[in-house]
Amino acid sequence: MSLANEKLLGKIAMLSCLDDSYVQKIEDLGWRFCKGKVGSMESNKVVAAIETAAKKEGVINGSIYRETHALYHAIMEAIYGVTRGHVQLGTVLRTVGLRFIVVRGNPYDQAEEGDWIAVALYGTIGAPVKGLEHEAVGLGINHI
Amino acid sequence: MSLANEKLLGKIAMLSCLDDSYVQKIEDLGWRFCKGKVGSMESNKVVAAIETAAKKEGVINGSIYRETHALYHAIMEAIYGVTRGHVQLGTVLRTVGLRFIVVRGNPYDQAEEGDWIAVALYGTIGAPVKGLEHEAVGLGINHI
Amino acid sequence: MSLANEKLLGKIAMLSCLDDSYVQKIEDLGWRFCKGKVGSMESNKVVAAIETAAKKEGVINGSIYRETHALYHAIMEAIYGVTRGHVQLGTVLRTVGLRFIVVRGNPYDQAEEGDWIAVALYGTIGAPVKGLEHEAVGLGINHI
Amino acid sequence: MSLANEKLLGKIAMLSCLDDSYVQKIEDLGWRFCKGKVGSMESNKVVAAIETAAKKEGVINGSIYRETHALYHAIMEAIYGVTRGHVQLGTVLRTVGLRFIVVRGNPYDQAEEGDWIAVALYGTIGAPVKGLEHEAVGLGINHI
Amino acid sequence: MSLANEKLLGKIAMLSCLDDSYVQKIEDLGWRFCKGKVGSMESNKVVAAIETAAKKEGVINGSIYRETHALYHAIMEAIYGVTRGHVQLGTVLRTVGLRFIVVRGNPYDQAEEGDWIAVALYGTIGAPVKGLEHEAVGLGINHI
Amino acid sequence: MSLANEKLLGKIAMLSCLDDSYVQKIEDLGWRFCKGKVGSMESNKVVAAIETAAKKEGVINGSIYRETHALYHAIMEAIYGVTRGHVQLGTVLRTVGLRFIVVRGNPYDQAEEGDWIAVALYGTIGAPVKGLEHEAVGLGINHI
Repeated sequence: MSLANEKLLGKIAMLSCLDDSYVQKIEDLGWRFCKGKVGSMESNKVVAAIETAAKKEGVINGSIYRETHALYHAIMEAIYGVTRGHVQLGTVLRTVGLRFIVVRGNPYDQAEEGDWIAVALYGTIGAPVKGLEHEAVGLGINHI
Repeated sequence: MSLANEKLLGKIAMLSCLDDSYVQKIEDLGWRFCKGKVGSMESNKVVAAIETAAKKEGVINGSIYRETHALYHAIMEAIYGVTRGHVQLGTVLRTVGLRFIVVRGNPYDQAEEGDWIAVALYGTIGAPVKGLEHEAVGLGINHI
Repeated sequence: MSLANEKLLGKIAMLSCLDDSYVQKIEDLGWRFCKGKVGSMESNKVVAAIETAAKKEGVINGSIYRETHALYHAIMEAIYGVTRGHVQLGTVLRTVGLRFIVVRGNPYDQAEEGDWIAVALYGTIGAPVKGLEHEAVGLGINHI
Repeated sequence: MSLANEKLLGKIAMLSCLDDSYVQKIEDLGWRFCKGKVGSMESNKVVAAIETAAKKEGVINGSIYRETHALYHAIMEAIYGVTRGHVQLGTVLRTVGLRFIVVRGNPYDQAEEGDWIAVALYGTIGAPVKGLEHEAVGLGINHI
Repeated sequence: MSLANEKLLGKIAMLSCLDDSYVQKIEDLGWRFCKGKVGSMESNKVVAAIETAAKKEGVINGSIYRETHALYHAIMEAIYGVTRGHVQLGTVLRTVGLRFIVVRGNPYDQAEEGDWIAVALYGTIGAPVKGLEHEAVGLGINHI
Repeated sequence: MSLANEKLLGKIAMLSCLDDSYVQKIEDLGWRFCKGKVGSMESNKVVAAIETAAKKEGVINGSIYRETHALYHAIMEAIYGVTRGHVQLGTVLRTVGLRFIVVRGNPYDQAEEGDWIAVALYGTIGAPVKGLEHEAVGLGINHI
C-alpha cells in the first residue's frame, strides 16, 4: 500500500487539467477519464456538470450508487480547494469558470487497492464581472 | 484588469510545484519565488516553514506586515485545498508531506494591479503510517 | 447537575426518532414532544417544518423569542449531523428525506436545570434521484 | 440501488449504539462489527480508538489503505455530528465520553453495491467538569 | 418580543468593550457584568479566562449547567468573529490579545424574555511577533 | 510595524458603526469611508450593497481588481462575525438588518504599511419575523 511513482493519480489529473499535453500519460496508463468545462454562480451546476460527464463517458457506472457516492465526495473536496472555506458561490456573490477532469485508476503498487477517483479543477473565481477574478484549483481523491 | 494568458500566476505556480521543468518559466518572467518541503502533523509547522522560506529568500519583505498578512492568507487558503473542510492535521490524526512553492508577480495586463502572491502545495495526506495516504493539492492567491 | 440515567433526553429523542415503540417512554415522563416528516432540497424548508410543528403542537411557545432561539440552534446542530461539514443541501445538489422529533424536558437530577430541548433527525441524504442516497442522523440539544 | 428496509445499516448501527438489545440484529444479518468506549479531550484519540478497535476486531483490513480511508472519513463524519460545526474538543475546552460502534454490511438490495461502513457515536460532550455536559450523537456512513 | 432601543445588550457590550466610558450605562441598567483581558495562542485559554471571570464575579451561576452552557456558546460565537472561519489560533500559528466583557440582562421589552448574555471581544490577532497583527472583534449572544 | 494607538482602524470603524458621534474621528484623520444600511435574507445582497457603496463613494477604486479583492475578503470576514459558523442567511431561514461602514486608512506607525480597509457591521439577525432576532456584529480587516 504505497503510492507508485509512475502512476500518481492526483498529480497526473492536476497536470492534465492545467496542460493538455499530459493527457497522453493517462491514456498510456489505460485509465478512464473525462474532461469538460463549466461556468456558473451555482455550485450545484458545477457538481451536476462533472457528474453528468463522468457518467456519460463511462468513468463511473451511474447505476451503482457506491460509484456516484465516491465521485460526489471527490467533487466536493475539489470544490473546497476552489472555494477555500465555504462551499458557496452565488450566495456570496462569486462565480467560477472551471476546467475539470475526472480520472479513475489505481495509484498504488498493490492491485487490491483497486480503483481510486480524482477530480481536478482549474479556473477562475471572482465577482460576476469580467476581470474581477483570480485563479483557483482543487483536487479531490476518493476510493471507488 | 484581465488575467494575461502568458502569465497566469496560479497555473504557473501549480505546474512548477508538480513538475520542476516549469520553474524556468517563472525565471523567464523575472518573478520572485521560493521552493521547499515540509512534513508534519502540526499545521502551524506547515505555515511556519512556508513563511520562513518566503522571508529568507526575499519573496516577501518580512519587516512590512502587509506582506506577511498577504502571504499568511494565501498559505491558509492553500491549506484549505489540502485539508478540505477543516484546517486540522494532528488533531484529527492526519499528517502531511508537502512540496511548496511561493511565487510573486503580476498576472494581470494592467501594471496598476501590482504584485500578487501564489502559494501552491502538492504532496500526501493521511494516517501517520507510511502508505496510508493519498495525494492532495492546494493553491492560495492574494494581492500583496 | 448530572444527567439522570432514566431521563436521558438525547437518547430518548434519538431512539424515538428511529423506533416508534420508544415514544411511550416520552409520554411516561410527561414531556412535551412532536414528530413529523420533511423532504426537501432546501435546508430552510427543513428548519421551517420543524419550527412550525414545534410551535403548533405547543412544544415551544412561539410568542417568546428565547424559546424560538433555543429551538433554532438545536435544529441547526441536528442539521450539522445530517450534512456533516456545511449546512447545505440543494446548493450542493443534495436532497434529504427526514423524520424528526422535538422533545422538551429536564434530563438532569436538579430541578433548577429547567427544560432542555432535543431535536433528533433520521432519514436519507443523497442525489435527487431515488436510491442514490444513504442514511444520516443528527441530534441537537439546547437549554430553553 | 435502493436501501433495503430490513437492513438499514445506519439505523441499526445507531440503535445498537444506544441500546445493546439491538446488537443481536447485526449478528443475525451476519455483519461484522465492533463496539467500544473512549473518553478524551483530544479528538485524535477518539479517531485512534475507533480505528484500532475496527482493525483489531477485523471489521476492516488494516493492510489495505482503501479500507482505512473509508473508515477514516466515516469516523470524521460521525464526529461532525458530535461536535456540530468544528471538529475540535480540547482546543475549545470540551471533552467527550463516547460509546462507539462500527458496523460493516450492504444495506442495499443490489449485491453489487458491496460493503458500506457505519460509525455511530453516542455519549456526552461538555466542559471538563463532571456534570457540565449534555448528550451528543453522530453517524458517518461510507462505501468501503 | 422586540428589542428595546435603550437596552440593546449587544451594542452596549460591544461599546463598553471598546470604550470604558460606556460601562456606566451597564451599571445604570443594573445589569451584571465582568471585564478582563486574555492573551494566548491557545483558544481553550481564551474560553477558560472568560468562563472563570464570569463565574467568579457572579455573572453566571457556575453550579447550574444551563448557565455555563449558555455562556459557552456565547463565547464560541464571539470567537468566530475574531477568528473568521475556523476557531483556531496556535494550530494555525496565530495569537490573540483580547479585552473581553460579559454582560447579562434582558434587552427585550417583555419581562418573560428573561436574561440574555452577551460576550464582546476586542483586540488583535496575528503572528506571534509584536506588530505582525491587526484588530479583531467578536460578539456572541445567547439566552440564559 | 506596530498599530498606532490614536488611529486604530478597526476600533474606530466599529465604534462609528455603533455610534454616529464617532464618525467625526474618521474625518479628522482624513480617511475615506462610507456608511449604509442593508436588510436581506440573501447574503449576496449584503455583499453587493457594501461593494456598491464603497465603489460609488470612492472608498475603493472599482476599476482596479486588487481593491475589489481586498474589500471582498474584508466583507466576508465581517459576515463571519455576524453569522458565526456558516456564511448563510435565507438558506438557513435567517434574515439580517445591518448598518455597515467601510473605512480606509493606515493604522500603523509606518507609512510603508500603506492603506488597510475595515468593514464593520452591526444589526440584528434572526427569523424572518419582526422581534424574533438578536443583535450581531462583524469586523473584517484587510490590506489594500
